[in-house]
Amino acid sequence: MFALPEKESRAPSTCPGPASTQDLDSNCGDGLERECSRKPDQKLPELYGVGDPTAGFSSNSSHLSSRGGIIKWFWDSAEAGYRTYHMDEASLTWAPVRTNSALTCCPRGLREEVARFLSFYCKSPVPLQAENVVVLNGCASVFSALATVLCEVGEAFLIPAPYYGAITQHVCLYGNVRLVSVYLDSEVTGPDTRPFQLTVEKLEMALQGANSQGIKVKGLILINPQNPLGDIYSPAELQNFLEFAKRHELHVMVDEVYMLSVFEESVGYRSVLSLERLPDPQRTHVMWATSKDFGMSGLRFGTLYTENRDVATAVASLCRYHGLSGLVQHQMAQLLRDRDWINQVYLPENHARLKAAHTYVAGELRALGIPFLSRGAGFFIWADLRKYLPEGSFEEERRLWRRFLDHKVLVSFGKAFECKEPGWFRLVFSDKAHRLCLGMQRVRQVLEGKSQVAEDPPACQTQEPRDRHR
Amino acid sequence: MFALPEKESRAPSTCPGPASTQDLDSNCGDGLERECSRKPDQKLPELYGVGDPTAGFSSNSSHLSSRGGIIKWFWDSAEAGYRTYHMDEASLTWAPVRTNSALTCCPRGLREEVARFLSFYCKSPVPLQAENVVVLNGCASVFSALATVLCEVGEAFLIPAPYYGAITQHVCLYGNVRLVSVYLDSEVTGPDTRPFQLTVEKLEMALQGANSQGIKVKGLILINPQNPLGDIYSPAELQNFLEFAKRHELHVMVDEVYMLSVFEESVGYRSVLSLERLPDPQRTHVMWATSKDFGMSGLRFGTLYTENRDVATAVASLCRYHGLSGLVQHQMAQLLRDRDWINQVYLPENHARLKAAHTYVAGELRALGIPFLSRGAGFFIWADLRKYLPEGSFEEERRLWRRFLDHKVLVSFGKAFECKEPGWFRLVFSDKAHRLCLGMQRVRQVLEGKSQVAEDPPACQTQEPRDRHR
Repeated sequence: MFALPEKESRAPSTCPGPASTQDLDSNCGDGLERECSRKPDQKLPELYGVGDPTAGFSSNSSHLSSRGGIIKWFWDSAEAGYRTYHMDEASLTWAPVRTNSALTCCPRGLREEVARFLSFYCKSPVPLQAENVVVLNGCASVFSALATVLCEVGEAFLIPAPYYGAITQHVCLYGNVRLVSVYLDSEVTGPDTRPFQLTVEKLEMALQGANSQGIKVKGLILINPQNPLGDIYSPAELQNFLEFAKRHELHVMVDEVYMLSVFEESVGYRSVLSLERLPDPQRTHVMWATSKDFGMSGLRFGTLYTENRDVATAVASLCRYHGLSGLVQHQMAQLLRDRDWINQVYLPENHARLKAAHTYVAGELRALGIPFLSRGAGFFIWADLRKYLPEGSFEEERRLWRRFLDHKVLVSFGKAFECKEPGWFRLVFSDKAHRLCLGMQRVRQVLEGKSQVAEDPPACQTQEPRDRHR
Repeated sequence: MFALPEKESRAPSTCPGPASTQDLDSNCGDGLERECSRKPDQKLPELYGVGDPTAGFSSNSSHLSSRGGIIKWFWDSAEAGYRTYHMDEASLTWAPVRTNSALTCCPRGLREEVARFLSFYCKSPVPLQAENVVVLNGCASVFSALATVLCEVGEAFLIPAPYYGAITQHVCLYGNVRLVSVYLDSEVTGPDTRPFQLTVEKLEMALQGANSQGIKVKGLILINPQNPLGDIYSPAELQNFLEFAKRHELHVMVDEVYMLSVFEESVGYRSVLSLERLPDPQRTHVMWATSKDFGMSGLRFGTLYTENRDVATAVASLCRYHGLSGLVQHQMAQLLRDRDWINQVYLPENHARLKAAHTYVAGELRALGIPFLSRGAGFFIWADLRKYLPEGSFEEERRLWRRFLDHKVLVSFGKAFECKEPGWFRLVFSDKAHRLCLGMQRVRQVLEGKSQVAEDPPACQTQEPRDRHR
């Protein structure tokens, strides 16, 4: 026999009946009942049975939004019985087990595997901790959960633009959080600058602009390597951006989903987790997934690393809605620990293929006289097609995109990335060689103004540029 | 060469840059870029780059909330390029393929398999249609998505209480939707009534009560077979509840997650999808999952069946956040089509085990003189322990629960199900025989007031009540 852990549980004052819960055999299966651990003196809502769990509740963590506090509270309240059950593993506790126990959410073993994996590939100065890892079904879910637990409805994140446009939906559809663009210019302003360069000055300006319009900014999103620029931030730049965020008490969400897709070693990519010291570790949250680096977006596997225990708990509390199958957990743990195969087989081959494909598309663009950006990371080239837009309008940009599509080439136009200059397009090159060849022929046909799709020359069916690297 | 589908796309008036999107190689992988299909004359937000996609947008579907309309709009806008790409399957369209194409979200084949499965097991009068099926990672996600796309923030669903308490979180944590309890009584009021019986009168009263407090009720949740009662609704009752909902233009969400766990055939369970005619098919939404009926809650597989195309599309639009792995999709399709094994091996064995376990626990409760409810469905018995609460308070209920836990038995108390009468407990019996035996011994110890945990008699380690059925 053992005593229950003594724990203060601070309930939302108007939380409905089953507000506080307790898991029986897993932390997140939806087949699992939870129990009310609300203290008897806690108030019920005025209309008994009509609960509004969000009313009158303020978070007890300065890092969480009020709804984040509620989400975490549900979880914390659930802990007592759960821990009691699991503390007793030596003996037999009778509890309903209706689930394959191998298939529970976010088991410790997988989080340890992720921590070891990230420690190694992010080159962290000290080993990363499993308890700082949250595993969900992809980074879309991590964005959705972070927006919800960090922000009130209508609050905002800064994000340098152009940026991967789906993030707008990730933070908005459930979280009702908006993005404030930090617009970057293609123009190079000095000898040490590059096109679309992010600077602290631009961050400061965008933040002031939002503030002046009464928009509450709660965080900054950084994508590194950047999508769609293929750009990477130097350690000094990263440090500056993190210091900026700390000055303004902003959370920083660093999306490193292309971390292992840096195919030019010379660019010197560094994960934010490799920094000797994070200026504000409690507000620094790092995402990674297998969707890009292992080409498995359909597998649905994304991770969050944060030292902020409240944030980790609140995000994990949403794992019922973003849970990944035990099958996937098992397979991913196996994959992540196969360091020999990853280092000696997968990554060298993947980088060689990316480099060959990049070389081919870059060469074709040069032959067409098209300027482009690309620094040796990611799956795309950011191409400047402004010379094909006589008026330089987004309408023309869209028409050009339609012409590509009519010629059976699907590319992405800059407006989809909130680029402020019409005429930029993102071309993905991570494809089979003969398809790249065919695609580039069609791109050429469109840009050279041919209205008919020409017969595809047979060369594309056999010529495999990347075979050089095999 | 082919023309793009002509399609009107009605955009939120203040939608930010990358609001409208278009998928490249899947409907929901987060590695997939989407394109802006906003018409050039659509307005940008006043502060360029600071978008609030929810401002000034009203749904163009009477069945969707304003946010549901936005969610669906994102999806619809994405369709043109996606369809163009896939319409061209006969020839080769060049588009970036960075994903294992077998691992895309909600493929048609799986939805067809689900439709066939549900047609058969729900005994639908006509075959169910694949396009009405949405597959997500569990019914928790289906509840979360439905609450969000059907309700504005603060609106409510009716739900007969006691009910599976986690639904409170499912509709609230992301959707900010509340539950209005339709309180049921244990008291039997007439010869043809049963304890905790739901009636149309009770539904009407609860709805009026909510209306009088200014709470907007948008739907009704029915759990059938019911959790925690183990009760089922007759076809006539179902029809009455659906007619009630139709009169008040309420959506009905029917949670049939224990559909195949009816272990007493005599109770005559009928799925709502077996009804000859649904009073309001556009507002009737049916959920099923493998978590209970196949004991696989860790696999994360839940389905929604609805004839309402707007609702199906809006829920599917959230599948980036509730997506299940392609691995699971593949395995589930295989399982669902193995009708011989399910019918001849799995279900008979599962029902026999449930029945044996139920018989055992029911017998033990009778021996203890404890009244209980159970109609031959589900995994639990709803037991009346009111005689052990001298004052009949929820505080006592909770103390009794703690005593069970101190004796290493984890059961669920009625307050967690929003039961209005203190003293009811839910006992799950879907467990191994020797653990049930041990558990019931501990229950007896607690109820007979023994303060020490007795030695577990060796009988429990060997005696397997359900072996009789093998």
